[in-house]
Amino acid sequence: MMNNLGNFLSLSSFGESHGAAYGGIITHFPAGLEVDFKAIQHELNRRKPGQSSIVTQRKESDTVQFLSGIFEGKTTGTPIGFIIENENQRSKDYDHIAQAYRPSHADYTYEQKFGIRDYRGGGRASARETLNWVVAGALAKQLLPNIQIQAYTSSIGEINCSTPYYDLDLSQTESNIVRCPDEATAQKMIERIKEVKKQGNTIGGTVTCVVRNAPVGLGEPVFSKLQAELAKAMLSINACKGFEYGSGFEGSKMTGKEHNDLFNADFSTQTNHSGGIQGGISNGMDIYFRLAFKPVATLLQPQESFTRNGEPIILEGKGRHDPCVVPRAIPIVEALTAFILADLYLINHKKKLP
Amino acid sequence: MMNNLGNFLSLSSFGESHGAAYGGIITHFPAGLEVDFKAIQHELNRRKPGQSSIVTQRKESDTVQFLSGIFEGKTTGTPIGFIIENENQRSKDYDHIAQAYRPSHADYTYEQKFGIRDYRGGGRASARETLNWVVAGALAKQLLPNIQIQAYTSSIGEINCSTPYYDLDLSQTESNIVRCPDEATAQKMIERIKEVKKQGNTIGGTVTCVVRNAPVGLGEPVFSKLQAELAKAMLSINACKGFEYGSGFEGSKMTGKEHNDLFNADFSTQTNHSGGIQGGISNGMDIYFRLAFKPVATLLQPQESFTRNGEPIILEGKGRHDPCVVPRAIPIVEALTAFILADLYLINHKKKLP
Amino acid sequence: MMNNLGNFLSLSSFGESHGAAYGGIITHFPAGLEVDFKAIQHELNRRKPGQSSIVTQRKESDTVQFLSGIFEGKTTGTPIGFIIENENQRSKDYDHIAQAYRPSHADYTYEQKFGIRDYRGGGRASARETLNWVVAGALAKQLLPNIQIQAYTSSIGEINCSTPYYDLDLSQTESNIVRCPDEATAQKMIERIKEVKKQGNTIGGTVTCVVRNAPVGLGEPVFSKLQAELAKAMLSINACKGFEYGSGFEGSKMTGKEHNDLFNADFSTQTNHSGGIQGGISNGMDIYFRLAFKPVATLLQPQESFTRNGEPIILEGKGRHDPCVVPRAIPIVEALTAFILADLYLINHKKKLP
Amino acid sequence: MMNNLGNFLSLSSFGESHGAAYGGIITHFPAGLEVDFKAIQHELNRRKPGQSSIVTQRKESDTVQFLSGIFEGKTTGTPIGFIIENENQRSKDYDHIAQAYRPSHADYTYEQKFGIRDYRGGGRASARETLNWVVAGALAKQLLPNIQIQAYTSSIGEINCSTPYYDLDLSQTESNIVRCPDEATAQKMIERIKEVKKQGNTIGGTVTCVVRNAPVGLGEPVFSKLQAELAKAMLSINACKGFEYGSGFEGSKMTGKEHNDLFNADFSTQTNHSGGIQGGISNGMDIYFRLAFKPVATLLQPQESFTRNGEPIILEGKGRHDPCVVPRAIPIVEALTAFILADLYLINHKKKLP
Repeated sequence: MMNNLGNFLSLSSFGESHGAAYGGIITHFPAGLEVDFKAIQHELNRRKPGQSSIVTQRKESDTVQFLSGIFEGKTTGTPIGFIIENENQRSKDYDHIAQAYRPSHADYTYEQKFGIRDYRGGGRASARETLNWVVAGALAKQLLPNIQIQAYTSSIGEINCSTPYYDLDLSQTESNIVRCPDEATAQKMIERIKEVKKQGNTIGGTVTCVVRNAPVGLGEPVFSKLQAELAKAMLSINACKGFEYGSGFEGSKMTGKEHNDLFNADFSTQTNHSGGIQGGISNGMDIYFRLAFKPVATLLQPQESFTRNGEPIILEGKGRHDPCVVPRAIPIVEALTAFILADLYLINHKKKLP
Repeated sequence: MMNNLGNFLSLSSFGESHGAAYGGIITHFPAGLEVDFKAIQHELNRRKPGQSSIVTQRKESDTVQFLSGIFEGKTTGTPIGFIIENENQRSKDYDHIAQAYRPSHADYTYEQKFGIRDYRGGGRASARETLNWVVAGALAKQLLPNIQIQAYTSSIGEINCSTPYYDLDLSQTESNIVRCPDEATAQKMIERIKEVKKQGNTIGGTVTCVVRNAPVGLGEPVFSKLQAELAKAMLSINACKGFEYGSGFEGSKMTGKEHNDLFNADFSTQTNHSGGIQGGISNGMDIYFRLAFKPVATLLQPQESFTRNGEPIILEGKGRHDPCVVPRAIPIVEALTAFILADLYLINHKKKLP
Repeated sequence: MMNNLGNFLSLSSFGESHGAAYGGIITHFPAGLEVDFKAIQHELNRRKPGQSSIVTQRKESDTVQFLSGIFEGKTTGTPIGFIIENENQRSKDYDHIAQAYRPSHADYTYEQKFGIRDYRGGGRASARETLNWVVAGALAKQLLPNIQIQAYTSSIGEINCSTPYYDLDLSQTESNIVRCPDEATAQKMIERIKEVKKQGNTIGGTVTCVVRNAPVGLGEPVFSKLQAELAKAMLSINACKGFEYGSGFEGSKMTGKEHNDLFNADFSTQTNHSGGIQGGISNGMDIYFRLAFKPVATLLQPQESFTRNGEPIILEGKGRHDPCVVPRAIPIVEALTAFILADLYLINHKKKLP
Repeated sequence: MMNNLGNFLSLSSFGESHGAAYGGIITHFPAGLEVDFKAIQHELNRRKPGQSSIVTQRKESDTVQFLSGIFEGKTTGTPIGFIIENENQRSKDYDHIAQAYRPSHADYTYEQKFGIRDYRGGGRASARETLNWVVAGALAKQLLPNIQIQAYTSSIGEINCSTPYYDLDLSQTESNIVRCPDEATAQKMIERIKEVKKQGNTIGGTVTCVVRNAPVGLGEPVFSKLQAELAKAMLSINACKGFEYGSGFEGSKMTGKEHNDLFNADFSTQTNHSGGIQGGISNGMDIYFRLAFKPVATLLQPQESFTRNGEPIILEGKGRHDPCVVPRAIPIVEALTAFILADLYLINHKKKLP
């Protein structure tokens, strides 16, 4: 119930950073799909940390093993169980945080909520959980063959890619390590991240995601509006602090006359302030939204904090350091988008009588 | 499943703008609460359109009738059924839109999705559905006696209340018709709305919501993070285009050193960029978030559009006109917040062993 | 969650015996069905108590009002809200049970669970709730046009209709007040009920239900097997004490060689001990099951009991007396069956790729 | 949704007979329980096939690996993921059924439903899935320390243990291989099974389950009545054809005067025809129910059938042969009962205001 992504097509997941494995169960996946396993591993590789000079590496193969629901390469309609083993269980490194709460981490809230906390690498709060989402999203995407889902880094700190998405060549997103399709801006972003890395500091940014060729009719009228399902999924990403779609916060400054999207004769619209969604339901235009990511809380600098018993402590900055998670969020955002769209697509099939 | 607000404490709702009634069923509401009926009607009255000179009136009493689940003034633990009758069923006024799609409305998408559309007043897409939410939220709030939930209008168009929430006297929110606690800004907002109204135009704005005294521990680790549940609820409001909490989009420009909230010895935090939520779980600090609302799509100006058959048509601007829904969104935002918090509060009770 | 019938097509319901109204919300009902309202009222009339000389009457019109989800006679795909008003709210008659617990009623358990109890007519525990089920089932049946769902009284006390269902003319079920298609047995049943009624006593019985022309493929592999969903629905009926399908309890005495249903060349089976279900999924053969109903607990005889405070009390037998609910259960069993089948039918549509 | 056991405490599971592994995710398990791992493995061992001379062995260790949700031996409140590897993947043995449908198996219905079928050992339809239930049930039982849940074999074929449960010494259940606490009856049952085995035939039977010391208040008023949840769970067991609780089918022959359970002054009841449940809610008396199991469909005899293409075929009886699954069902029935009770117990905690 509260551990699920999706309503009909559903992912239930488990795993902690230094437990034995991550994994999940995908239910109500249609039967008969010939699974493209390489495409799934490709997405897992895109998500992998430590692929470039701007981050410290965590060496894990991140290989998914499918345990059920696929027979002779095809989905059978039964639950798809999968795991990804944690190869890198350096539990000893975490003794220093067993008794202390790190600032802006989940340490304090988990312990208050549950009375117990797996302190190794953030436990259940670790972003390594997104492995599960990438597997599920990569599978879900295969249900939606014509759709194009493309996310990119639209800002790092103050450095902003101000060109609107429709004037960018999104096919260039993977051509640089920061995953910004505008090469000049990308270089500035990389410089900024390097600067921050040198200080043992971190920095935030924004991600823009664009969906092309989504079918008309996805989303439910009131409580599972397409934008509401997307917002819920995106705000599940650890560092995500905001979601806006279509005209977003800028749209709040506009008048209705400026904002209304007039129709063309084929029912496409002349403008797309609606972001491809009207009344909670996709209208066939591009769906686009933007996400805010805060800077990662783990610094390579000493920080003041307190132990569980309220004694002051200096937390040394050590361990793996990721100065900016925004580029790595790209495949995760795409995966969640694919899963939400596939779920609403399967649901939508029942809305008209045969 | 897709027609529900809440996970355990749950609202399922129904109703169309010009149908017989709105209503809902609230399940798993604890037994034994002495219901404050006046408080519920008070919230319904706050939500009512046409309470001030800046909007056209819709004359309805908006009286809720509870049909079950309450006995001798107390909740019994069984489902609470309620209805609010639609007194104002002017169906004839809607003939002109039966065959045409209004720009930036749900007309086209509903018809594509369902093959049929109740065109009277927007049908299921009407914001009158929020009546149900206000009833459910006002009840839910009574489960959380010490909590304070206060929303206010933080901008209208370009006019922004730049004072942060903690420097405002939120008790002044209801002292003006635009529901902005900063009186000087409120007057500018009212002027702007009057201007827009005179043109038959509309304007957007933002709402800020603050929760004080929320218990620690609300929210689930991965897919029902507190911020994710809030975002989903808020993006269910018709004109809502964006959600950000804590540092939000501004936080994406910060470094980790600036953004991290250092602890005090009592585990409160020195700053609150986290917006009262860490790892998806409330930490006892103020929870605050901000919402973007687009301008209403219904104008009192003629607009070009097309009929279902693709013939050009001029839609005359007529009917009830609401130049700015932002002030009316205040009690709705508060109601949804109360419901989400009460749901997560009830769920949280089971997280530790007795 | 726990107040729902169905998984995708879903009924959430409310109401107490002497509250203002019963009602429900049906979600995910497909759009575009031209509703046969007369058929629904016909089923409500079949369910109505007091239609014959063998029971005391409760005079209520039991008229359903649809409040949403239907426009110009057709379903719109949005939630269908409905209510049935309670016209007969004789609350004063129930003072004698406000402080005492009736034997084999829900009085004691409700009060222990909730700490409060609507004692009027059984409150939420009243069988009047089945009104909601009959409405939902009658609507659901219209989604399954070729299916035949027929239940009948197969025994009253020791009087048993031993002819198997396939040798009975089920079209004769409504030709007598006890709803047994075997006229000779029916007369004996009526005699037995009259005898019991004269004593102010009650008697139990069994119901057999047969589904013909159900599509192949209904039911999910593990936890929503067709028989499991049927059993859950049927055990929700107040007096139902047992469920068996196909060979049932008799089947437990057989050997595999006797019990196995050998195929014909068209994949129909030569025998049908499986009751139309193999591996939890319908196979196209007749689905049939049998239900046990205990005798009603309300007697027109004095009974010993205790007050809430543990003082002995004699409960006088008074009020409406229904010596045997089995005949009235027939339309309720059919309604629940229709709803479960329609739910699994809609779910099944997504199991193969287009 | 349709792949879940439980409403709040929830098991989602996966696995096929000859896939890589079985497994599941248990969500909303309370934090802080010190897990008794030996007790879990003990239950898995009780379930294991091939423990006695009356069945053919399947040699697998059936060892559960917990992958998450447990830290330093205690539950953390986060999802508990687990797997049980399939060591015995003799896929080649199943070529003969790849193209043919076995009588009274799920072969035909799975293929009709999904268009594809994992034919190895029954795939998802294999009773090996009950491994997952035993793990989940054994864990759930640890949440209910004072409860006693005891199932036993109450009949095999025509051989019936006619002594009522309360006159049996249930602690003797494990003292013989057929799991009937009445030793004389047990010996007759074993003889009957041996006889059937010699013929390559199989035989059915019944199981009775008794719950002592269950708390008052478990079960929800209408759609999640305790008996309905139990029935649904039990009818999920592959060969289960019927469920009755308390007086069951026999109760349908009684009058109300005979059947009503009069109270004692402490609100226990003088008789217990209600089976410990009134109005769908446990009343503190023993909960007891009885289940019918059909004979296993796999015979060691040749059987006539048809291929997928409709050609007649003789299916040779070969492979592992289990002449009677009833004794092995005992730990499975207990596990499902424990899980359902723990789920309703956690839910019930929220029913009264603090």
